[in-house]
Amino acid sequence: MDAAEFRRRGKEMVDFVADYQENIEHRRVYPDVEPGYLRSMIPSEAPLEPESYEDVLRDVDRVIMPGVTHWLSPHFYAYYANSTSFPSILADLLSSGIGTIGFTWAANPACSELETVMLDWLGKMLQLPEDFLSETQGQGGGVIQGTASEATLMALLSARLKTVKCVQESDPQRSEADIISKLIAYTSEEFCATLGTTPCCAFDKIDELGPICNAENIWMHIDAAYAGCAFICPEFRPLLNGVEFADSFSINPNKFLLVGFDCSAMWVKKSADLTRAFQMDPEYLKHEHQGSGWCNHLHQPYSTHKIHWGIPMARRFRSLKLWFVFRMYGLRGLQAFIRKHVELAKTFENLVRGDNNFEICAEVVMGLVCFRLKGSDELNKALLKQITRTGKIYLVPCKLRGRFVLRFVVCGRTTELRHIQEAWKHITELSSELLQNLFDHEGKEN
Amino acid sequence: MDAAEFRRRGKEMVDFVADYQENIEHRRVYPDVEPGYLRSMIPSEAPLEPESYEDVLRDVDRVIMPGVTHWLSPHFYAYYANSTSFPSILADLLSSGIGTIGFTWAANPACSELETVMLDWLGKMLQLPEDFLSETQGQGGGVIQGTASEATLMALLSARLKTVKCVQESDPQRSEADIISKLIAYTSEEFCATLGTTPCCAFDKIDELGPICNAENIWMHIDAAYAGCAFICPEFRPLLNGVEFADSFSINPNKFLLVGFDCSAMWVKKSADLTRAFQMDPEYLKHEHQGSGWCNHLHQPYSTHKIHWGIPMARRFRSLKLWFVFRMYGLRGLQAFIRKHVELAKTFENLVRGDNNFEICAEVVMGLVCFRLKGSDELNKALLKQITRTGKIYLVPCKLRGRFVLRFVVCGRTTELRHIQEAWKHITELSSELLQNLFDHEGKEN
Repeated sequence: MDAAEFRRRGKEMVDFVADYQENIEHRRVYPDVEPGYLRSMIPSEAPLEPESYEDVLRDVDRVIMPGVTHWLSPHFYAYYANSTSFPSILADLLSSGIGTIGFTWAANPACSELETVMLDWLGKMLQLPEDFLSETQGQGGGVIQGTASEATLMALLSARLKTVKCVQESDPQRSEADIISKLIAYTSEEFCATLGTTPCCAFDKIDELGPICNAENIWMHIDAAYAGCAFICPEFRPLLNGVEFADSFSINPNKFLLVGFDCSAMWVKKSADLTRAFQMDPEYLKHEHQGSGWCNHLHQPYSTHKIHWGIPMARRFRSLKLWFVFRMYGLRGLQAFIRKHVELAKTFENLVRGDNNFEICAEVVMGLVCFRLKGSDELNKALLKQITRTGKIYLVPCKLRGRFVLRFVVCGRTTELRHIQEAWKHITELSSELLQNLFDHEGKEN
Repeated sequence: MDAAEFRRRGKEMVDFVADYQENIEHRRVYPDVEPGYLRSMIPSEAPLEPESYEDVLRDVDRVIMPGVTHWLSPHFYAYYANSTSFPSILADLLSSGIGTIGFTWAANPACSELETVMLDWLGKMLQLPEDFLSETQGQGGGVIQGTASEATLMALLSARLKTVKCVQESDPQRSEADIISKLIAYTSEEFCATLGTTPCCAFDKIDELGPICNAENIWMHIDAAYAGCAFICPEFRPLLNGVEFADSFSINPNKFLLVGFDCSAMWVKKSADLTRAFQMDPEYLKHEHQGSGWCNHLHQPYSTHKIHWGIPMARRFRSLKLWFVFRMYGLRGLQAFIRKHVELAKTFENLVRGDNNFEICAEVVMGLVCFRLKGSDELNKALLKQITRTGKIYLVPCKLRGRFVLRFVVCGRTTELRHIQEAWKHITELSSELLQNLFDHEGKEN
């Protein structure tokens, strides 16, 4: 395929994506396929000779689409969202199209630098303490990781190395293995200090945990993957009070800030804690500017090279997504988006509270409503099974205090009040059938 | 931005990318910017109100492009390539546009299943032993990781856990910490068994290492990130002999198979070794089909859920890139691409060998030529500095047996014979100037 054909096919693909998103709500949100459906639909090996593009695209409709869970559908209420938007998709296309890879500054100066500045922009939107920003001549700064899991692992490995070094300073004879065998990581049920847990969006009291961690010289990492995005709204910012005690902090703009997956923003107070754990320095990565502390890292050469900030050596130009989205929406546009989702969740909560068969199972703070039918876990499992089988909306469950609970997360960029109302109507219809069957069944037994 | 505007802007972006790639060779391949160039060119915080798309795109030209190292340029001869192509970019656009995220099977069945089958396709193209394929009712299979570093880390952690469990079986009293403190990882200078090292594309003799590893119950991971792609050509396949002794094996299609970054293909013989190390199982990921062993994993439920195959929980729909590229090029097209690059490297090697001032520093097997001016490291460093400053072509160095060496890698999809000839002419002109200056300088001193 040459550039001329790419112009044609690329424009068709843009229309394909626009058509897909415009009509997505008419698709069955959860696919009606069985495990293993795909293998028999395509050949068992790659073709020897090239095939036509038409054939490939036809197979996207024939093979792929029937097996897709439609995360961008307004009927998708599962997990947390892939909160993408058209500006984010355009930025991704630009990133794929210029195909430049960042690791050291020299490998792609624009990538290293835009990422650092965008993490400052986002840090300021969240009103992070200056310690976490790179522009302030301190030792902190941000980096994009692929996922919150990676950010957590980075924090864990950095904390471990820092503690080992610290113990060895006072006791140089102790082996690393011996020290590591004595280390303890304190976690809640969801690991580490969390703002907005996955099951029920609960919040740890970091302003209580923080001073203890600081006093005891314990690394505090705060994972605020979903809820952290909402801290750009002043009314939610108090939940982040105490972040000043943290060593590292991460949120996922791809969960709630209209940025497509993958994009996990991570900040550290002392970048050297991170880069010391991951630094590598082969000849083929050396270049003239490697020692220059171009932002805040005057005393820590290399730290502007994102390669030292995580496990993957190479990285895509992901900061373009942040740049496009922040500018095309503006802070006010992003705040409005978050507030709309929170309001829709409140609406759903009120619908649940208005129905005596149901109960709310956790405080509704942002876009997640945890609810269940009053009654047994089995009853709720049966309800979820019916919801999934019908495929009109898609939810996943969680366990709260040992009970099986349904999670309803407002996810879609295009979710409106009517979708919430339809979803609730659908849920109550299915539950009425279930309860009626149960009643009939019990009637027969008596 | 609504779908209508996306149609317009998306098509403009397609043209932008096509224009970029068609004219890329007229750009200075290595940017003429100093560290810190970007921060002062953009505001220090995000805008409150939305900006126009025109302004954003104007800034791509004004702020980003001058700071980009142009990896797709035919004048780019550094690192190893981001071997992308138009079909790969289209697949990426599709992936961004449908915005579905895979982790469990249910989160996106098409993503889990296409990935598994594509890794089988690629495994067959490489003539991997059946143990590594998922279709053969064995215990093996493949997965896409982001980078070779991630694949190596997965192998290392899996090997560690496996060895700990193995020791504890015979000696249940021994603590994990004690066992770990005794573990040894054997590596060469480049870590693990490598086919095609980064500095000079050297090959470990895996058919000699393998039997020893097997006899001693040592996990053998083979990293063939770049060179492994070439094993789809029968003439290179013998270099992979011995892979039957390996526990895990990885190549990066994004380095040499026309697939855009990121895409590291990893295979394991026993998927349970991997999934046992990374398995997680919260309620919100459970679903009806979670226990079904739809391909080969009848005895290992969950292993079709890619979440258990690595560190990141969520994952993009990256197998679409493999599918589009394999089908649009066909095996023969991919082989032709690899052979062309190898031939161009041979041409460059011959040019170097024909010049008495230069020497070849390592056997040229694939697309990498390691060479240097006969003389001191300083002389070669001075040459590289001139090359980088001039910005017409871009190379990076390596160290071989303690000596400073230049690496010339044929990277571009559009690199032709004339580019190689131009590059060599440019290098010899710069080196002539250098040698003349040196001669003049020495003349003065005498």
